[in-house]
Amino acid sequence: MSGPATVTAAVLVIGDEILSGRTKDRNIGYIAEYLGKIGVDVREARVAPDVEEEIVAAVNALRARYDYVITTGGIGPTHDDITADAVARAFGVPIGEDPRVIALMMERYLLADLTPARRRMARIPAGAELIDNPISKAPGFRIGNVFVLAGVPQVMQAMLDFAVKSMRTGATMAVETIEAGAVPEGRYGDALGAIAKAHPAVSIGSYPSFKDGKFNNQIVVRGKDEAVVASARQAVEAMLAAMRGDGKPL
Amino acid sequence: MSGPATVTAAVLVIGDEILSGRTKDRNIGYIAEYLGKIGVDVREARVAPDVEEEIVAAVNALRARYDYVITTGGIGPTHDDITADAVARAFGVPIGEDPRVIALMMERYLLADLTPARRRMARIPAGAELIDNPISKAPGFRIGNVFVLAGVPQVMQAMLDFAVKSMRTGATMAVETIEAGAVPEGRYGDALGAIAKAHPAVSIGSYPSFKDGKFNNQIVVRGKDEAVVASARQAVEAMLAAMRGDGKPL
Repeated sequence: MSGPATVTAAVLVIGDEILSGRTKDRNIGYIAEYLGKIGVDVREARVAPDVEEEIVAAVNALRARYDYVITTGGIGPTHDDITADAVARAFGVPIGEDPRVIALMMERYLLADLTPARRRMARIPAGAELIDNPISKAPGFRIGNVFVLAGVPQVMQAMLDFAVKSMRTGATMAVETIEAGAVPEGRYGDALGAIAKAHPAVSIGSYPSFKDGKFNNQIVVRGKDEAVVASARQAVEAMLAAMRGDGKPL
Repeated sequence: MSGPATVTAAVLVIGDEILSGRTKDRNIGYIAEYLGKIGVDVREARVAPDVEEEIVAAVNALRARYDYVITTGGIGPTHDDITADAVARAFGVPIGEDPRVIALMMERYLLADLTPARRRMARIPAGAELIDNPISKAPGFRIGNVFVLAGVPQVMQAMLDFAVKSMRTGATMAVETIEAGAVPEGRYGDALGAIAKAHPAVSIGSYPSFKDGKFNNQIVVRGKDEAVVASARQAVEAMLAAMRGDGKPL
């Protein structure tokens, strides 16, 4: 599953509101799916609190390990928005009010309305490139391999559209989903393991969901070589067909 | 925000399906909210892939730092279910088929139907206590301060009800949510920061959401001392009332 065409990323969600359960995160799933489609594999995600040293540690751990890190949250105008300062500290660079951002904000605010709180949003680490925010002006930024985006999903998504333009991308994954339906995982687990072993270039997952008192299973085959994925898919379908036709109760 | 009555936890979600975006995680938010209500503060969350060394590293990093770790996912019967083995390795203990689990499974399956795949679900690290699974029998387990639960939300939730019975709990958080509505964060950011500074025993967050082209803001005050939370809430309400009444455009 590795190779020169593999580009990796991690997602770092920042915010006490996620860890208290007050706000249910929707950014990890969105970013994972979005990046996967363009050939960037999300390999890890973390949620960190609004505590500077925690954010610094997570940014540094992740940026050393993956090609890209996407952070969400903590770039607004209030005292609990500390992501920009934490990222500057993680990179060991100074941070100050960026005149490019002040100029952007003056498209939306009169100078008299640029409160100190709003000016917080102009704090950008030295050397960072800005990331457009078409919704509410105050931009995200990129420094090194770290992209710093807003936490509000709609704003984050608009920023991500812009951010990915500067990302290197790898081969995209071919993904095939096979409905196992009511065939129990415990029935096909052994045979599926054998198919997985015979197709080391793909990743095969089995995913139960539970509704109205019943399990429903899906098998997902993922890989970068379409032909190998197709061959694994056929093997899975043949396996399920044999189980459905063998006369034993499912 | 710390003290003898503080009990901390981390959540570790395990599964490639979350990192590919195929399945959107619902467990972090559920567990965070549930534990918060009983006085266990979730301080960090991670999502790890179905890769043994990654799970081992995450379990060991988190169990050393927090009072409890809750893992979800990877305890089913298929080849990609490797959580139990990874947790055994993290603790450096042997793992084998647990006769208690075989007995439980025989309430549901005939012996002849206990396929090797199903028997995988009986692999429990030495010394672990079982966690009831009222939905599909195959249990979770607790070893040390780590609780290993299923990934399917309904099964995880049933296991969590059982798991928390053996957790030490701390003081619960008093939480007050104040509707700032259309008052912009940039208007109240400075005053709110001053209120936060004046109330160091509480955590104050400002959370915008975006709908139909407009931001709507909520301010949340959290803390373990109800009187201090109430006092901070009053200060926030007075601040907003002053801004709504000062005749300036919001």
